[in-house]
Amino acid sequence: MAKTNAGRFFEDYKLGDILVHAVPRTVAEGERALYHALYPARHALYSSDEFARDCGLEGSPLDDLAAFHVVFGKTVPDVSLNAVANLGYAEGRWLKPVFPGDTLRSVSEVIGLKQNSNGKSGVVWVKTRGFNQMGEVVMEYVRWVMVRKKDQDLPAPETVIPDLKQVIPAEDLVVPEGLDFSNYDFDQAGEPHRWGDYEVGEKIDHVDGVTIEEAEHMMATRLWQNTAKVHFDATFRPNGQRLIYGGHIISMARTLSFNGLANAQMIVGLNGGAHANPCFSGDTVKAWTEVLDKADTPAPGVGAIRLRLVATKGGEPFDLKGEDGKYKPEVLLDLDYWALIPQ
Amino acid sequence: MAKTNAGRFFEDYKLGDILVHAVPRTVAEGERALYHALYPARHALYSSDEFARDCGLEGSPLDDLAAFHVVFGKTVPDVSLNAVANLGYAEGRWLKPVFPGDTLRSVSEVIGLKQNSNGKSGVVWVKTRGFNQMGEVVMEYVRWVMVRKKDQDLPAPETVIPDLKQVIPAEDLVVPEGLDFSNYDFDQAGEPHRWGDYEVGEKIDHVDGVTIEEAEHMMATRLWQNTAKVHFDATFRPNGQRLIYGGHIISMARTLSFNGLANAQMIVGLNGGAHANPCFSGDTVKAWTEVLDKADTPAPGVGAIRLRLVATKGGEPFDLKGEDGKYKPEVLLDLDYWALIPQ
Amino acid sequence: MAKTNAGRFFEDYKLGDILVHAVPRTVAEGERALYHALYPARHALYSSDEFARDCGLEGSPLDDLAAFHVVFGKTVPDVSLNAVANLGYAEGRWLKPVFPGDTLRSVSEVIGLKQNSNGKSGVVWVKTRGFNQMGEVVMEYVRWVMVRKKDQDLPAPETVIPDLKQVIPAEDLVVPEGLDFSNYDFDQAGEPHRWGDYEVGEKIDHVDGVTIEEAEHMMATRLWQNTAKVHFDATFRPNGQRLIYGGHIISMARTLSFNGLANAQMIVGLNGGAHANPCFSGDTVKAWTEVLDKADTPAPGVGAIRLRLVATKGGEPFDLKGEDGKYKPEVLLDLDYWALIPQ
Repeated sequence: MAKTNAGRFFEDYKLGDILVHAVPRTVAEGERALYHALYPARHALYSSDEFARDCGLEGSPLDDLAAFHVVFGKTVPDVSLNAVANLGYAEGRWLKPVFPGDTLRSVSEVIGLKQNSNGKSGVVWVKTRGFNQMGEVVMEYVRWVMVRKKDQDLPAPETVIPDLKQVIPAEDLVVPEGLDFSNYDFDQAGEPHRWGDYEVGEKIDHVDGVTIEEAEHMMATRLWQNTAKVHFDATFRPNGQRLIYGGHIISMARTLSFNGLANAQMIVGLNGGAHANPCFSGDTVKAWTEVLDKADTPAPGVGAIRLRLVATKGGEPFDLKGEDGKYKPEVLLDLDYWALIPQ
Repeated sequence: MAKTNAGRFFEDYKLGDILVHAVPRTVAEGERALYHALYPARHALYSSDEFARDCGLEGSPLDDLAAFHVVFGKTVPDVSLNAVANLGYAEGRWLKPVFPGDTLRSVSEVIGLKQNSNGKSGVVWVKTRGFNQMGEVVMEYVRWVMVRKKDQDLPAPETVIPDLKQVIPAEDLVVPEGLDFSNYDFDQAGEPHRWGDYEVGEKIDHVDGVTIEEAEHMMATRLWQNTAKVHFDATFRPNGQRLIYGGHIISMARTLSFNGLANAQMIVGLNGGAHANPCFSGDTVKAWTEVLDKADTPAPGVGAIRLRLVATKGGEPFDLKGEDGKYKPEVLLDLDYWALIPQ
Repeated sequence: MAKTNAGRFFEDYKLGDILVHAVPRTVAEGERALYHALYPARHALYSSDEFARDCGLEGSPLDDLAAFHVVFGKTVPDVSLNAVANLGYAEGRWLKPVFPGDTLRSVSEVIGLKQNSNGKSGVVWVKTRGFNQMGEVVMEYVRWVMVRKKDQDLPAPETVIPDLKQVIPAEDLVVPEGLDFSNYDFDQAGEPHRWGDYEVGEKIDHVDGVTIEEAEHMMATRLWQNTAKVHFDATFRPNGQRLIYGGHIISMARTLSFNGLANAQMIVGLNGGAHANPCFSGDTVKAWTEVLDKADTPAPGVGAIRLRLVATKGGEPFDLKGEDGKYKPEVLLDLDYWALIPQ
């Protein structure tokens, strides 16, 4: 059908292409409430306007991952509708908090292309930026996906693989303007553990688990206007199961990590991430974290902590990879991010 | 029980009766967010305050169908609690956008009555108006339902069948005050197709599908305070299945139609509609549209387009009626409406 | 793991302990909309800002039970994480309406302790207060739970059983400032029955039923940031069923009671309550009410009515206890509360 969006194929991407993604979105108190209904979200800075103001912000922002999902969701029709695989994330930075009433839109640039040797598909790297209504960049990240080629007779483009940082240096992290943890209320936040209490190499089992329901992951995925068929149409995949949006697992694992990381309040950097195995309705998601690094920030009382967040279904705590170096089948997500935590 | 509402029976309606429906409702950002969570809603005018303002409105209104559901939901206890069948809609017009903070209430007038020849039931026609807190009519429509008679010995009322328009003439459509599509942003709206790109008779397969879950249709139906037992109580029907509110299918089909009709932004007229077959949890809903007519409007850059929106479960694209003239069993909805679209 | 919350055991409670519960929460229009989506909520005072203003309030408050759930949810990590049973409620009073934008936090005091004779567990009584951002108490209640003892060799504490009122005297009920039912609109409220129309001893079958879904009770329970594992993790209990939060049944029964008690608008007192039997997904919840008492209030046109609200799954209307004096297996909830109703 000429009128509907068939999505882009590998040959439709050119290096330097600017993709202006559709459907701007105003976010407000409704999205905040739904985030609390869909995930066990308890980080105080995103729950209480009073707590956020006591930390120097104008009020409680939209959860950082909710902002990510809104920005990401807009890119789906232009980037991943015909994607075979979502291969990775890098250089993700949150640059401005998103407040109720803000309107977000997304723009991506094609920064890398590499046709696969079989000639049937290729890898596309895009750098995506989310903007608010003032034209300020609220977040940015690089994502790469494998996309099918439609016309396999077309020549391969020149291979360009972007030079991406394995880890965002702590000095490149942007601390929200005004953030001040000098008078941080640990009682109200829920745990006493501060920056100095975490050691590099320490692992935390977040204990709690959530069994996933179809209605919930679909509502979450729709809320971000991510309309990939595979998440909604049970007839789309041969086994009749809807594939759960990887971002749903990210938010589920992050909110479960409250239990042990209640003070890792704001996410400011996304170093990388892999959706190791698919997740389906009925799976029970648990999470564990490893402390990877720590750093200072210039903001009063604010430290940075680099965390590996792993989501699993079943299995044992701290499961990750097998002897073959591959993710164990019960591992859903392996995410590497920077958070801000009181010192 | 004397205290609970047993609903009205056919003999309880008199021509000219005014039914003041209960429970006024203030709608706000929460309802907007839930509409996005429950349906794949992406029309930009209802997603972004900025986009709506660029189109001359004061901000993003509540989705037209959400406004319809709120107005409709209030009528259920007085009109359709004992209804055997929801027979049709006509002469529906949206007269004022509903904005966050508005409070809606509904009033209906009995405009037609016809007892069935078996003496056991009859058809009631009501004209319903939804009002905002300023007393302005935000929408109106005619609906007719078949209602059981309680005392079959009572005489039949005089038969009065209202003279209803098959189609609302384009000149009777009300374009919201200030609406101006002169500077419409097609990139942000998601598709390039404008009024002139659609031809009468053209059919569009909207491609995407959503498999329906119990939790979702119940949340949607409750959100509009429609409390008909059959939607919520699995023990109510002999087969243990909850019947899905027909309005849920209308909203699902309309939001799926974004893919191909992203610019058919505002609904302004409802010419007619049939809930051809019931829908149950587990059904996968798809949608297609046929362009029925086109018209000018006096507003700058604003055209009107008349669309037949059909929702199906399974089957082939463009399925509608069999050789016997009856709806095929996979057809759920056949809706005839007017939308506003940039020229 | 040292970083996660293992919950308190019986020996961790001392008489007079003040428990400052974590995670303050700002509630707004989003929570109101979700309450309407999750429950068949129709009481006009909580649905319409206009109706609430006509009753002398500044606008529509958060549903009283939603306020209760928010206050209660915060206490779970400190009070009931290791609870074996939720034994009772008493002396619950709503003292200030909660309005959109308010931020709630909770503080509890240990007011009673009694070790069980087996030495393996004990009963803890706490008095919980919910505060808004001005430091005003919005509600208070006493709850007692049976909690496991971790180290059974520790000596039993001195037994202190608080002296709790069986029923809150009507003169201790707090009517919200400004509440005035003199010009109450019975048409908009949905039923004509006023204070004088109800007789002590009268029973009302609320007729409607709702079949419970996993996704809905989990969303409701999360919305109040109640994170007890047993509600979310299907692998936690031997039979693979998630136990439904008792508060979900309270809200379901109360909202079902609209049909027959549409004018019992505001809840001001909780005299007691028992979760008689557990509820699971697939159960169909119905409700009935018995009028226990009536009283005057000093506010214009405002009467108080004391109601026993019983929720059941299956069974017959008005089922309660068997000949052995124990709750019948189909009874889920037996709640004793005071509401305000127009005279």
